[in-house]
Amino acid sequence: MGSADASVLALSGGVGGAKLALGLADELPPGNLHVMVNTGDDFRHLGLHISPDIDTLLYTLSGNANTTQGWGLEGETWNAMDALQRLEGETWFRLGDRDLATHLWRTDRLAQGDSLLHVTATLARRLGIASHIHPMCGEAVRTTVHCAGRDLPFQQYFVKEQCAPAVTGFDFEGIAAARPNENVMGLLRGEAVSAIIVCPSNPYVSIDPILQVPGVWQALRNSRAPLLLVSPIVAGLALKGPAAKMMAELAVPVTALGVARHYCERYPGLIDYFVIDESDATLAADIAVLGVEVAVTDTVMKSREDKQRLARFLLALAGS
Amino acid sequence: MGSADASVLALSGGVGGAKLALGLADELPPGNLHVMVNTGDDFRHLGLHISPDIDTLLYTLSGNANTTQGWGLEGETWNAMDALQRLEGETWFRLGDRDLATHLWRTDRLAQGDSLLHVTATLARRLGIASHIHPMCGEAVRTTVHCAGRDLPFQQYFVKEQCAPAVTGFDFEGIAAARPNENVMGLLRGEAVSAIIVCPSNPYVSIDPILQVPGVWQALRNSRAPLLLVSPIVAGLALKGPAAKMMAELAVPVTALGVARHYCERYPGLIDYFVIDESDATLAADIAVLGVEVAVTDTVMKSREDKQRLARFLLALAGS
Repeated sequence: MGSADASVLALSGGVGGAKLALGLADELPPGNLHVMVNTGDDFRHLGLHISPDIDTLLYTLSGNANTTQGWGLEGETWNAMDALQRLEGETWFRLGDRDLATHLWRTDRLAQGDSLLHVTATLARRLGIASHIHPMCGEAVRTTVHCAGRDLPFQQYFVKEQCAPAVTGFDFEGIAAARPNENVMGLLRGEAVSAIIVCPSNPYVSIDPILQVPGVWQALRNSRAPLLLVSPIVAGLALKGPAAKMMAELAVPVTALGVARHYCERYPGLIDYFVIDESDATLAADIAVLGVEVAVTDTVMKSREDKQRLARFLLALAGS
Repeated sequence: MGSADASVLALSGGVGGAKLALGLADELPPGNLHVMVNTGDDFRHLGLHISPDIDTLLYTLSGNANTTQGWGLEGETWNAMDALQRLEGETWFRLGDRDLATHLWRTDRLAQGDSLLHVTATLARRLGIASHIHPMCGEAVRTTVHCAGRDLPFQQYFVKEQCAPAVTGFDFEGIAAARPNENVMGLLRGEAVSAIIVCPSNPYVSIDPILQVPGVWQALRNSRAPLLLVSPIVAGLALKGPAAKMMAELAVPVTALGVARHYCERYPGLIDYFVIDESDATLAADIAVLGVEVAVTDTVMKSREDKQRLARFLLALAGS
């Protein structure tokens, strides 16, 4: 642990998690970052296999992400979508022209029998990414969002209905039959990981799916590497996405303490360090009662330097 | 016959045939043109169902065809292909960004159980086309080009290898099980067609597949409507595409007479009028010996007016 050449494993959903992953990639030697990514958001749309969280990691770590828009590719064009609109096709999920190439290539490779693990690794390499992007599993796991009286596939909830419905719970269809990414499990078995960092992603729909792939959270807990989790809730607000809204709808306190309780109750013994923002420093004692070390720093990542600084803080903490 | 409101049925492959179809559409009352289109060129590529000849008709009749390039859409962009190239995907078949919308929409509809006939009709309507575009059949028929020692799927021969290999013959896989487009057959059964016009498309890989869908050429022959065929060979050259090269490789005289013999031998009694270009007028007597009426006019279509003029000539001939 603490060796400059040891691997770091990060768990991530989409945009919020990818920010920290980028900071970690900047701070680590090339190739030392492994990101295990949620695929519960994956879906089939217009015949294409779309992996939104994986693509966000691919585009962010290759330096192609549109950081203004918050999703998709920089300098993207929308001519296919415009033409599809003319054909009265489904355009609620916006697929840019360049982004389409990713989905076409992936869908074609999967149809030819290639695995999502290998397809993702090849995409990362061809986009010039030195870090390793690991889908949480190769099998199809599909997040369903339970709302009042309705069960919505994740992208319908998230994009089509823009997170408007109040949630009552979540299901990850297919997860019981999923097998955790063998590359990640191999790293953990070989104790090749010096730190495990859970990015400030949505607990319910980004991190829970990863942890609930059978065997994953137990393997993370059993690893000698310290596990650091960065709270996605800062001063009662979600850093990104609907986490705060979901917590409120589930009658969970919308605080870092609420997040900590969620993880500590479901995954006892998993977290070594719970990392909160300075604005939440007064919660530290209550969180520590749950049996975790609490670390306080500035967790809000606006600039590239913010991301790198938080990454350095976490790596130093893990090595301490 | 000859009624201004009667339907005209045209048989067409891609670019060469679509030119005449456009002229016919211009000259006929809206909705009176029915085009039966070759689908032997259809193929699956990058997971997409691509119907090149149908798309050429769609884009030509909707006024969106790129007439300079000779295929695809006017003002097309290529950002998806550029991104696919970066991913080292297959880019030999150039799919423009707007064109991709057509393939995505079609593939998705077919996957949902819609028929190629209905999908094509819907595409035509949504592109604002008054004419009717009929796939020759709904079943998959795939043209194979036999070359010296190799059997090439049509698009591999036509696009990837740019028609370079010498051909020895052709097969239309699946054609024995194909059922002719029921809408076209219904028009013929009801004697609702005042003229049948075979466009100057490639005899071997555009028109033969249509005629060889079981029952089609017999139904055309049995119709009371006159059948007019426009020679795709003018002065020993193909108006468009590899027809002349194929004829030479098959040791067929590269003349309108060679074309006439091909049709008269395979489909006896089918052709009423064989239409040749003025530059081939000296062949008229030899063609007439085959038992068809020969009509001579300027068949080369460069301008929109050329297309309309040839269409008027054919419609007048059919009504005579």
